[in-house]
Amino acid sequence: MPSSFGNKLRVTVFGQSHSAAIGCVVEGLPSGFEPDFNRLATFMARRAPGQGTWTTPRKEADAVHVLSGLNHAGGTCGAPLALEIQNTNTRSGDYDNVQAVPRPGHADYTAWAKWHGNQDVPGGGHFSGRLSAPLCAAGGIALQMLEARGVQIAAHLQSVADVEDVPFETVRNDDASRARLAAQMRHLHESWGKGLPTIDPAAADRMLAAIEDARRDQDSVGGVIECVATGLPAGIGSPMFDGIENLVARAIFGIPAVKGIEFGRGFEVARLRGSQNNDPYRVDPQTGTVVPQTNNAGGILGGISSGAPLVFRCAVKPTPSIAREQDSVDLTQMRDAPLAVHGRHDPCIAPRAVPVVEAVCALAVLDACLSFPPEQP
Amino acid sequence: MPSSFGNKLRVTVFGQSHSAAIGCVVEGLPSGFEPDFNRLATFMARRAPGQGTWTTPRKEADAVHVLSGLNHAGGTCGAPLALEIQNTNTRSGDYDNVQAVPRPGHADYTAWAKWHGNQDVPGGGHFSGRLSAPLCAAGGIALQMLEARGVQIAAHLQSVADVEDVPFETVRNDDASRARLAAQMRHLHESWGKGLPTIDPAAADRMLAAIEDARRDQDSVGGVIECVATGLPAGIGSPMFDGIENLVARAIFGIPAVKGIEFGRGFEVARLRGSQNNDPYRVDPQTGTVVPQTNNAGGILGGISSGAPLVFRCAVKPTPSIAREQDSVDLTQMRDAPLAVHGRHDPCIAPRAVPVVEAVCALAVLDACLSFPPEQP
Amino acid sequence: MPSSFGNKLRVTVFGQSHSAAIGCVVEGLPSGFEPDFNRLATFMARRAPGQGTWTTPRKEADAVHVLSGLNHAGGTCGAPLALEIQNTNTRSGDYDNVQAVPRPGHADYTAWAKWHGNQDVPGGGHFSGRLSAPLCAAGGIALQMLEARGVQIAAHLQSVADVEDVPFETVRNDDASRARLAAQMRHLHESWGKGLPTIDPAAADRMLAAIEDARRDQDSVGGVIECVATGLPAGIGSPMFDGIENLVARAIFGIPAVKGIEFGRGFEVARLRGSQNNDPYRVDPQTGTVVPQTNNAGGILGGISSGAPLVFRCAVKPTPSIAREQDSVDLTQMRDAPLAVHGRHDPCIAPRAVPVVEAVCALAVLDACLSFPPEQP
Amino acid sequence: MPSSFGNKLRVTVFGQSHSAAIGCVVEGLPSGFEPDFNRLATFMARRAPGQGTWTTPRKEADAVHVLSGLNHAGGTCGAPLALEIQNTNTRSGDYDNVQAVPRPGHADYTAWAKWHGNQDVPGGGHFSGRLSAPLCAAGGIALQMLEARGVQIAAHLQSVADVEDVPFETVRNDDASRARLAAQMRHLHESWGKGLPTIDPAAADRMLAAIEDARRDQDSVGGVIECVATGLPAGIGSPMFDGIENLVARAIFGIPAVKGIEFGRGFEVARLRGSQNNDPYRVDPQTGTVVPQTNNAGGILGGISSGAPLVFRCAVKPTPSIAREQDSVDLTQMRDAPLAVHGRHDPCIAPRAVPVVEAVCALAVLDACLSFPPEQP
Repeated sequence: MPSSFGNKLRVTVFGQSHSAAIGCVVEGLPSGFEPDFNRLATFMARRAPGQGTWTTPRKEADAVHVLSGLNHAGGTCGAPLALEIQNTNTRSGDYDNVQAVPRPGHADYTAWAKWHGNQDVPGGGHFSGRLSAPLCAAGGIALQMLEARGVQIAAHLQSVADVEDVPFETVRNDDASRARLAAQMRHLHESWGKGLPTIDPAAADRMLAAIEDARRDQDSVGGVIECVATGLPAGIGSPMFDGIENLVARAIFGIPAVKGIEFGRGFEVARLRGSQNNDPYRVDPQTGTVVPQTNNAGGILGGISSGAPLVFRCAVKPTPSIAREQDSVDLTQMRDAPLAVHGRHDPCIAPRAVPVVEAVCALAVLDACLSFPPEQP
Repeated sequence: MPSSFGNKLRVTVFGQSHSAAIGCVVEGLPSGFEPDFNRLATFMARRAPGQGTWTTPRKEADAVHVLSGLNHAGGTCGAPLALEIQNTNTRSGDYDNVQAVPRPGHADYTAWAKWHGNQDVPGGGHFSGRLSAPLCAAGGIALQMLEARGVQIAAHLQSVADVEDVPFETVRNDDASRARLAAQMRHLHESWGKGLPTIDPAAADRMLAAIEDARRDQDSVGGVIECVATGLPAGIGSPMFDGIENLVARAIFGIPAVKGIEFGRGFEVARLRGSQNNDPYRVDPQTGTVVPQTNNAGGILGGISSGAPLVFRCAVKPTPSIAREQDSVDLTQMRDAPLAVHGRHDPCIAPRAVPVVEAVCALAVLDACLSFPPEQP
Repeated sequence: MPSSFGNKLRVTVFGQSHSAAIGCVVEGLPSGFEPDFNRLATFMARRAPGQGTWTTPRKEADAVHVLSGLNHAGGTCGAPLALEIQNTNTRSGDYDNVQAVPRPGHADYTAWAKWHGNQDVPGGGHFSGRLSAPLCAAGGIALQMLEARGVQIAAHLQSVADVEDVPFETVRNDDASRARLAAQMRHLHESWGKGLPTIDPAAADRMLAAIEDARRDQDSVGGVIECVATGLPAGIGSPMFDGIENLVARAIFGIPAVKGIEFGRGFEVARLRGSQNNDPYRVDPQTGTVVPQTNNAGGILGGISSGAPLVFRCAVKPTPSIAREQDSVDLTQMRDAPLAVHGRHDPCIAPRAVPVVEAVCALAVLDACLSFPPEQP
Repeated sequence: MPSSFGNKLRVTVFGQSHSAAIGCVVEGLPSGFEPDFNRLATFMARRAPGQGTWTTPRKEADAVHVLSGLNHAGGTCGAPLALEIQNTNTRSGDYDNVQAVPRPGHADYTAWAKWHGNQDVPGGGHFSGRLSAPLCAAGGIALQMLEARGVQIAAHLQSVADVEDVPFETVRNDDASRARLAAQMRHLHESWGKGLPTIDPAAADRMLAAIEDARRDQDSVGGVIECVATGLPAGIGSPMFDGIENLVARAIFGIPAVKGIEFGRGFEVARLRGSQNNDPYRVDPQTGTVVPQTNNAGGILGGISSGAPLVFRCAVKPTPSIAREQDSVDLTQMRDAPLAVHGRHDPCIAPRAVPVVEAVCALAVLDACLSFPPEQP
């Protein structure tokens, strides 16, 4: 179904930019888990606007209200978890001229072509980036559940415009590399809410400058987000169409503005030799288990986890809403009509999409753990 | 389910590299369509080995046998279409030392971690590239059905190693560009079976040289495949998790060796400004309809088709089976064990994956057309 | 997923007896339909308690609040419709002794066996009959949409204890019988809220007496509900596992307390001859279309509608909550423990289940219409 | 999808009465199970025609050919299990006059209304009772897997025409009753292939007479099948729409000719008091576990197993194909046209449907065990 994903764990998202509320229903959560709602609020805050010059000052409370799904002790109870976020502080007047004139880069025109004017237009309706808030609510809880299983997830801004951050240390898979990766992830967690989420603080400064450049030009700019999950045991996932790559890719393309995804070395594999790209195995002398010596595969072979870190990157397009005048058309009169999109918009979506990518990754990975675990020996 | 994908059109793939047969069941095909099985055989031949120096000489008949799903007139009848391909000419002896020692880059180890030795090992079992043959059988029929609806699909080798082909003409969306794209697609169709599938014949020569280099080094090399679909009307697809990007991505990652996918400008969007990446609209004076002037979006906005060509690229990793010795482990004794993979293997999988990408694209797009069409006004 | 059903139209129900709210998310509704919320409130009122001696006096407001899914004009907009009903006026104290001692006939023990004490116990949690309220909210809108397509649905109490109502006139399928059926349905609609929903008012009186007998005995009693849908064209549905019988049966067993379902002549067919049970065809001289002369099949052959009325009956067990002492066990101490269930309970659930059956039938039938329509010729 | 059912275990059935082959693909089987194909052949033989006077003498080999899904040791390997049965010995000439004139009681007309003549007509196409053979093939293996888990399934003819067999001893749930039930099941297994499957041999004789009566009258007769599953632990299943009742009902209505299903006391509950229908609990002094003292619920409460035997009955209509002349219409000329169905047809389908009910029950129950097990404590 359009607004749902997942197998044993299933997330159904509802809401529009200006509806009474937005939210989600999560089916299939294991029972007996008590979400820490303070931690969830901290996580949600990473997605909230108003954090810095790169975001719109629009203030969204984004308080998560539990409609159902918990028992009297505050633990999951086997029933669907329903989460609601009230929509407040909306200024629909900003969107008036958008009704008839589709904004380039948005879904306005394609939604009109599908629903012939019945779609909810203001603020993008169901296509709004606002719908990533319920994804963060559900995913923030999935992150906590995964952590209880020893799985850690972190993402950072790999690039904005032509500014690159240091990548996650995931290509090598020896103890030293894993320790450096753990330090990178710890650093990111400790820096939450203190500026752009990068591994290298200098990269954050240069990214801010690039975003400020775009904003000054009444323009916007895109970015790449890299995400890693550590602690996944080998044997999770499935061949062919329910592999971890399939599940994560399908879910990540549900985040507005994502236009590409790659796992491990990704598109770079096209230029590699087999002898460079294959990850040879060794027996870990300490644990007696099999370990890939390198991790070009991004932790997945044949759709199934290898025990090495899961790593992927996704491309986020520049904010389509820009104040510059663009060519468009008036759909009611079928004639050309220029458009400048006013209102409050982030000059770069990518920073606020970083926790969304973590959240969606967590939901897809938790679903893989629940739906396609290694068989009992 | 692991070996199935699709909504209203659902493909279930079965078989292992060395099982009696491989095949698929296709549910949800519209009735009354008479597949042209000669054309299907021609299409299947593009995936077959033995076409040139870049493929293994192993000869697979790959004759598609219809078990059920057609009426007496040879047309689809509303019942599931079941297609079978016999497995012949297998040399399981080649794989003997593989049983205990997982091949780097293959799913041998991850499958062992999942099924504890119950998995079918020889030739990769259900993970074998051989499973792309039934995908071509089902997809070859989907291609014919789409053609009858005015939708054309073509793919080419965008790159092998560091050799680039001319890209499809899809960024601009004016009449001249569309004509050039049509010519590119026609050229590819006419060159089928006459060497590597590129738009620029010179690129094919250089790619062959790069593949030959790898082969001489007992090594392999990867590539990128670009695929385009033209003729899709606006309004097909769905928001959030059943958008065309979601459906295509989930399906394409079902092709063995794919490690990344991007739509339209893809990862390049990260470096673009909004004013560069947004596709402005105009009214086509001839048809009176809305047309995106450019097509950075790759034909999709908010998961829904815009009427511009659908375009995506996917990265195919180098063949994991290489004759060079690699580090591995003996799973029965849990000790390090070097491995050289003998047998017949393509030094580059990407060329034979080109029709597979077309086939899977066709299945995902036909499913989108049937499952998420524009509403009746 | 446990709390969802449907294909193109998908309903996900959330909530527990004592959670903050209960509700549902409906994906896949055609756009542009403006629900009449006054009519919906009238429909919901038929399920509400406090209507007569056969129901608990507990007053539930059951006001349906739309969280999202409508456009500014009040019409469906292609986005999921999220409906919420606040939970008020709960007396959890009534359920205190139930926590450790499972109520016979309820899901208390089986939920405990599944979730080991994490389940939400008070009032039955997610198993509560209260969850039929969101089904009525979604189904009430589906009823309106079906009506706009010419499909009418009605249900009545076929029996309570040993009291039988007149059955729907559905076995014959001539014009006179259809007129009588229409009159029966009209009569039921006009009598809504004026006592037990029966075709024969005398049956209602005798049923009330039977219910009162049970109540006086601190006991409860069951019933059978018959439901009919007219106006469905031939050709809706699907062979094998997505036939109308399969879809309706799966959905109807989602109503708490239902223990059986039969279509057309149902279990009676076991005693019939083929010559008695087959429905012969004739050409309707007025319309020139094919019409089954009788309707023993209940409007379905091979899972597909025949154009004759869809008719089914389902059995509703007696209210499990009774004040009489019953044998049970204390799960915390694993010893026998007698139990008398206090609190407010209907002595017969069947009357209030009548609109629920209509609602669930409407959802399943609308899903069949949207998911498995006749093909375009 | 129309021809598939199941969640983690998914069965996709293909084939038509006269296609080259019929069969099924089973996804999600646990790995490492070695089916006993001799036992499977014995099971399939119970469904085969030619067993006695109550079946058509048409001889179908029904040899199950494994196309894929097993490893070299003959065990399931995690890949889909594909099973094929060749279609032989078909006499399509028998069905010639059926092409234009729909047989009453069959799906001929409704399929025509859906597919406008594209459907495969001869022998009923995809609607043929022949499609129950692959269900038996898949289900026969599921039965073996369940047996290895301690779950036993058996079914018998509860009634034919007005002749009743002794019911399974399932209403009481004490040790003596369970022993009697086990004896009934053992007796049925031992009598396989020796006449009609009844608990009481005298009932079989009277049923045979009733069937012979119908046959002599060029007519047919229906029946009821009762099925029981013992050994299921408590806690399997799910609330609302994926309960055991929902899953079994959806699957059982996939068997051609089934028109009703009821669990436990079924429709009888309508006439019971709560004090009669509730199953009180006791602590079993030997095992220290909770046991329902009676089993009116048929082993399911709130969709979840209680540990008591699962029991249901389904109604099978009389064979629609009868030699008597019946009213029908010529669809090509849209005029009335009488029809007598010649060819070889069972005068009663119910006996051969008994193993099919066992098979489908096994598939649905195994799916419930795999998809909705009790949570790990």
